[in-house]
Amino acid sequence: MSSKRLIYLPLGGAGEIGMNAYVYGYGAPGKERLILVDIGVTFPDMDGTPGVDLILPDIAWLKARRNQLEAIFITHAHEDHIGALGHLWEELGAPVYARAFTAHLGRQKLADQGAPEKALHTASAWPETVEAGPFSVGFLPISHSIPESSALVIDSPAGRIVHTGDFKLDETPIVGEAFDRKLWEDVARPGVKALVCDSTNVFSPAPGRSEASIGAEIESLIAQQTGMVVATTFASNVARLKTLAQAGERAGRSICLLGRAMRKMIEAAVATGVLGDFPKVVSAEDALDIPREQLMLIVTGSQGERRAASAQLANGKYRGITMKEGDSFLFSSKTIPGNERGVIRIMNQFSEMGVDVIDDNDGLYHVSGHANRPDLDAMHALVKPQMVVPMHGEHRHLRAHVKLAESNKLAGVLAVNGTMVDLAGNAPRVVDHVETGRRYLDGSVQIGALDGIVRDRIRMALNGQLIVTLIIDEEGAPLGEPWCELRGLAETGRSNAPLVDVLEEDLSQFINRAGAKTLRDDDKLEQELKRVARQSAMNEIGKKPEVVVVISRLM
Amino acid sequence: MSSKRLIYLPLGGAGEIGMNAYVYGYGAPGKERLILVDIGVTFPDMDGTPGVDLILPDIAWLKARRNQLEAIFITHAHEDHIGALGHLWEELGAPVYARAFTAHLGRQKLADQGAPEKALHTASAWPETVEAGPFSVGFLPISHSIPESSALVIDSPAGRIVHTGDFKLDETPIVGEAFDRKLWEDVARPGVKALVCDSTNVFSPAPGRSEASIGAEIESLIAQQTGMVVATTFASNVARLKTLAQAGERAGRSICLLGRAMRKMIEAAVATGVLGDFPKVVSAEDALDIPREQLMLIVTGSQGERRAASAQLANGKYRGITMKEGDSFLFSSKTIPGNERGVIRIMNQFSEMGVDVIDDNDGLYHVSGHANRPDLDAMHALVKPQMVVPMHGEHRHLRAHVKLAESNKLAGVLAVNGTMVDLAGNAPRVVDHVETGRRYLDGSVQIGALDGIVRDRIRMALNGQLIVTLIIDEEGAPLGEPWCELRGLAETGRSNAPLVDVLEEDLSQFINRAGAKTLRDDDKLEQELKRVARQSAMNEIGKKPEVVVVISRLM
Repeated sequence: MSSKRLIYLPLGGAGEIGMNAYVYGYGAPGKERLILVDIGVTFPDMDGTPGVDLILPDIAWLKARRNQLEAIFITHAHEDHIGALGHLWEELGAPVYARAFTAHLGRQKLADQGAPEKALHTASAWPETVEAGPFSVGFLPISHSIPESSALVIDSPAGRIVHTGDFKLDETPIVGEAFDRKLWEDVARPGVKALVCDSTNVFSPAPGRSEASIGAEIESLIAQQTGMVVATTFASNVARLKTLAQAGERAGRSICLLGRAMRKMIEAAVATGVLGDFPKVVSAEDALDIPREQLMLIVTGSQGERRAASAQLANGKYRGITMKEGDSFLFSSKTIPGNERGVIRIMNQFSEMGVDVIDDNDGLYHVSGHANRPDLDAMHALVKPQMVVPMHGEHRHLRAHVKLAESNKLAGVLAVNGTMVDLAGNAPRVVDHVETGRRYLDGSVQIGALDGIVRDRIRMALNGQLIVTLIIDEEGAPLGEPWCELRGLAETGRSNAPLVDVLEEDLSQFINRAGAKTLRDDDKLEQELKRVARQSAMNEIGKKPEVVVVISRLM
Repeated sequence: MSSKRLIYLPLGGAGEIGMNAYVYGYGAPGKERLILVDIGVTFPDMDGTPGVDLILPDIAWLKARRNQLEAIFITHAHEDHIGALGHLWEELGAPVYARAFTAHLGRQKLADQGAPEKALHTASAWPETVEAGPFSVGFLPISHSIPESSALVIDSPAGRIVHTGDFKLDETPIVGEAFDRKLWEDVARPGVKALVCDSTNVFSPAPGRSEASIGAEIESLIAQQTGMVVATTFASNVARLKTLAQAGERAGRSICLLGRAMRKMIEAAVATGVLGDFPKVVSAEDALDIPREQLMLIVTGSQGERRAASAQLANGKYRGITMKEGDSFLFSSKTIPGNERGVIRIMNQFSEMGVDVIDDNDGLYHVSGHANRPDLDAMHALVKPQMVVPMHGEHRHLRAHVKLAESNKLAGVLAVNGTMVDLAGNAPRVVDHVETGRRYLDGSVQIGALDGIVRDRIRMALNGQLIVTLIIDEEGAPLGEPWCELRGLAETGRSNAPLVDVLEEDLSQFINRAGAKTLRDDDKLEQELKRVARQSAMNEIGKKPEVVVVISRLM
């Protein structure tokens, strides 16, 4: 028994916010039986991942051990916890467990990628458990910003782990299960070895606020509006959708939900019974016949996403509906860092239409779904674990959370992606580092983050692209002159002559001077043509472009 | 007299934050004598302007009327007000006026671009004035976040305009002139036709705070630190540099300033006498010999800029200095929207080193340089203008500022870039719309924002690039097969064969089927090769790349 390990190994989500994927294992070193908790995605951006569709965790380590993998557990249906399920399931092939709402959405993800829906099993809440090799795993309800979020109670021969998933301590969450202190005390009572705990809001000093705390403000705001009201929030925040819809209904407005994600979430919530008395909604077609002062739209696109309903309304029209002077647009959401530009863009487009934009600057119309610093303290005190393992956070969040645990007299361990920690002893012990990383879904294929493909795209975007073609005849002599094509480069520079002419002239001069030896050697010739072209461009436009050289030899 | 106009025409800064450039004119329609206030830049980003070095206002309208231009006035030395001076002065050729500190930095900008430094004249503060055609212009001191910021008192035969420049109402600004209410009352007394007014902070509901209000907090923070202290702020905020340096000195630390911009600003402040008792500083070389607990660095890079001192320290080393566990790093700054990712990146790098990062989440260590909403109210009340023209703001800021003016019973006008407003009458009157836009400094050349060059870069970054070369022989028949090169594209796709092989095979098949007519017509052939290549890539990797086709015809 003493030689067996209880390992924790984040493959994603530890050292970043997004792409959660945590491995637990129990057994002799290297022979542990494994489970995976969550399998999420991260979203790409133009700065670092232009053209990429989705970012997935690199699960190569786990794939190589798929015969040790007992099961996959999904804590909740946010994309950063479930988004990679469809894309990566075939590589793992293990049974997947989730509660009904999460499972409903997870099955769609499997089906979308041609994976078998029956791999996903609907689990009931704690105290029911799923047996997975040496583990017994229960879904312990916890409040968050999506229905049926669950912590996992992971029992092993070496003790109990509580993996919080994303959470907040909300006793009045509007939709779904309230935080049940008594239930958590019961789980904690037998003793908890490790609390593996969400770190997202460790820098927020005030206690978190309940979803119920913003209803009155939203209601009062909507009651004051005279034109059409449009509100946006995260589509998966079903409680917020209800708060917004009820506020609209009480103001005598018909409610219309717009955006694919919005309809998908409501459909899942209705199908799985998590949504009870949601106000009656009208279709977009019917909305067109309703006087604007009696209408409220609830739309996707709180982050300024270019294709979402909000951005399309800002551009002019969505499903026949247009906004105009006197209407108002409410962001019942926060802007995720990095999305500011997109959000500001649509705010200004609305301003140009004369639409009043109301955002959450004052915290009146949005609350976070994550536990703030005092709530983390409360969680530590409630669970009384032997050790705290901060997860779901950038390095700075994990580090601050370790310090917080230590200030609460609990052992903490800072384990970023790839850090294998043995939790079996009295204190956490780092036992290994495994290679982790990211894979990119790019079009219909997966590429590695370090393959250089995206690096090449970034370089073309920063430096522009020059294509040089040269034909060498049967005798090894240049046939005609080098030919240049430009993309993303200024057409004229210092000399006022076309850049392409200057480049071709400089390359011709080089070719005319080049010896037979250089002309015979493709690598050498390519290298030299690149050098000359880059220098020539530098002189002319102050920029060294990326260069592709194509040498054709006639035989 | 009644046929003469007093025009206001923003060429930059109205409908955006950045790139300020405002034209005023007086005279018969079309024959107005003109002045330009400010000539700033905006900074590029990867999302919309990859590879661009600087964004400049398109001053084509003014250039075409350079014989009507009397002078250029610069309110203060922030880049978004003075940054384009060197790059655009030759196109305008008019005398430039600024106060000493601004002029000092402006002359460097002229010299850097080979423009004559003597074009820049140092102006004294109000009540002295500069005569410029029908205008008499005075530099009226106002507090901001850089020394010697000035509003302009622009007197014309049609009345007085007060152009605020960027400002706050700070009676204890640490460095430079305090806001002098009495002086402003004197300026307002004869009656002001138009207040052209900064709108940046119109959404900030609380009164602005003085630079002096944060000194004690910063001092107390630094006094608590045990390792090396590093602080960053905007290099141009000389008052903040002084606050930080004094706090360090009082904690018994030697002060070292790092970063080119930092040294340039201090040098200008010393040379022009705006900086009196700044603590003694040590060089980077000397700093290496000082025990870290007795050292404080003040560094550039509060926005996470990749080449600044802060980013280099985060990467490991700057001028021989490294940070380590127990040191602390203070952001005495706010993160400008759009810069979040860069700032978060260095925060996490510091966290990995064990460095404690302190940011301004709680508003303890930074104050804004712009007037908040109540301060704008106060300015309206103080100047009592006939009309308010909001400037320096995105559309949403300008719109909110117009509403604020109207709530203060003042006429307001929403004039974005290119909107010509006649201020001569009793109310502002939009009289024309002129074409405006942006130019990009790209390497050493200027390109137009709509030239398609940057669009091509973005497309390459999003879609990848495919180069197809084909040689056609003297008889008009293909010589060999089409040849493909990829950049920024996955190497294999659906079929598991190399993408380049699949593309070449599909293109060869097309060429073999193509009739002589297609092979004779370069345009048609190019178009068809593109189509086939894009479709082939789409099948294989789910992505349609940008395609460059090079057809070489042997003669």
